Amino acid sequence: MPKRVDHEERRARIAEALWRIACARGLDGASLRDVAAEAGISLGQLQHYFASKDEMLVFALEHISDLAARRVGERLGALGGEPSPRDVLLGSVREMLPLDDRSRTGHLVQIAYFVRAVHDERLRGHAKEGVPGLRAFFAGQVREGQLRGEVAGDRDPEAEAALLIALVDGLASYAVLDVWTAEEALGLVSGHLDRLFGVR
Amino acid sequence: MPKRVDHEERRARIAEALWRIACARGLDGASLRDVAAEAGISLGQLQHYFASKDEMLVFALEHISDLAARRVGERLGALGGEPSPRDVLLGSVREMLPLDDRSRTGHLVQIAYFVRAVHDERLRGHAKEGVPGLRAFFAGQVREGQLRGEVAGDRDPEAEAALLIALVDGLASYAVLDVWTAEEALGLVSGHLDRLFGVR
Repeated sequence: MPKRVDHEERRARIAEALWRIACARGLDGASLRDVAAEAGISLGQLQHYFASKDEMLVFALEHISDLAARRVGERLGALGGEPSPRDVLLGSVREMLPLDDRSRTGHLVQIAYFVRAVHDERLRGHAKEGVPGLRAFFAGQVREGQLRGEVAGDRDPEAEAALLIALVDGLASYAVLDVWTAEEALGLVSGHLDRLFGVR
Repeated sequence: MPKRVDHEERRARIAEALWRIACARGLDGASLRDVAAEAGISLGQLQHYFASKDEMLVFALEHISDLAARRVGERLGALGGEPSPRDVLLGSVREMLPLDDRSRTGHLVQIAYFVRAVHDERLRGHAKEGVPGLRAFFAGQVREGQLRGEVAGDRDPEAEAALLIALVDGLASYAVLDVWTAEEALGLVSGHLDRLFGVR
């Protein structure tokens, strides 16, 4: 089905044009026309894929999540053997921090989405669906750590998972504002995981 | 100096008009003229105080911080006696969570500022100045907890302070998106403080 592949490539190209704009000057004033121009296609072609800026934003966010999940998988695969729950968590949060241009841009797209979602219930639905998935995944890793005797049994996996998501998100936001560097943020969250996993 | 008092009242009234707009529909498209209309003054009168939207935003943020600091002081004063470091920290983070309309609006103003600051070095300077002050204050409370034997001596007060700021900010953002409630966020950060202060 070569046609379908073309469509996915086109969508990905549009999402990447959106990211470049997010990175260079923010998405506040960016129109569908601006994104089409950046992607090198006509407005009509873009509207074939996305009827509104919000639809495009949600797709760009999902595309970012997919790419990040793939990078996490590759990184963990490169570790070889069965990665420990702590490695899985640290590998995941690394992808959520703006350690390179790509993840920094991802964070900027997320903020652009966030600002719109606050005043748009339909967009908020996306966050309400996405976060519980990540939270369940993180909670599963904490539970696995408990089974291995690495995490104290009285820790609540669901609470720890929510704390970790919020913590990484806050660290990432302040890193984007240059309050601290992404490397300092990684050091802070790594220390938090050390404590959760009883390393110190 | 009655004249000066009038000016401060006027500035506060403008900041509150800005908050109402932030709460109702966001600040993205809000112009100085919109804020003037909401405050019931002319554009020229508003420009007497604020030459740009960014100046107004910075003032509104500082005004929010001042009000929050005053509320923290009142809350701690109401506890009577010398509040413990844990009480001071919990009282402070309560004000940073969107537990009522006022602090929810404060968070929305903060996000509007954030989105602009990412692409504006001058605005970023404000975050770079403000966060270290809060961090030093929190670190001082952690250090006081260590002196009282309530916080383990091997905890790094500066790191704990940064973790707490990032954590509360992330929890607040997701609370604004209805991913969890502000009360759940308060429960999560309270559990985090319990652990820091060795309660459990």
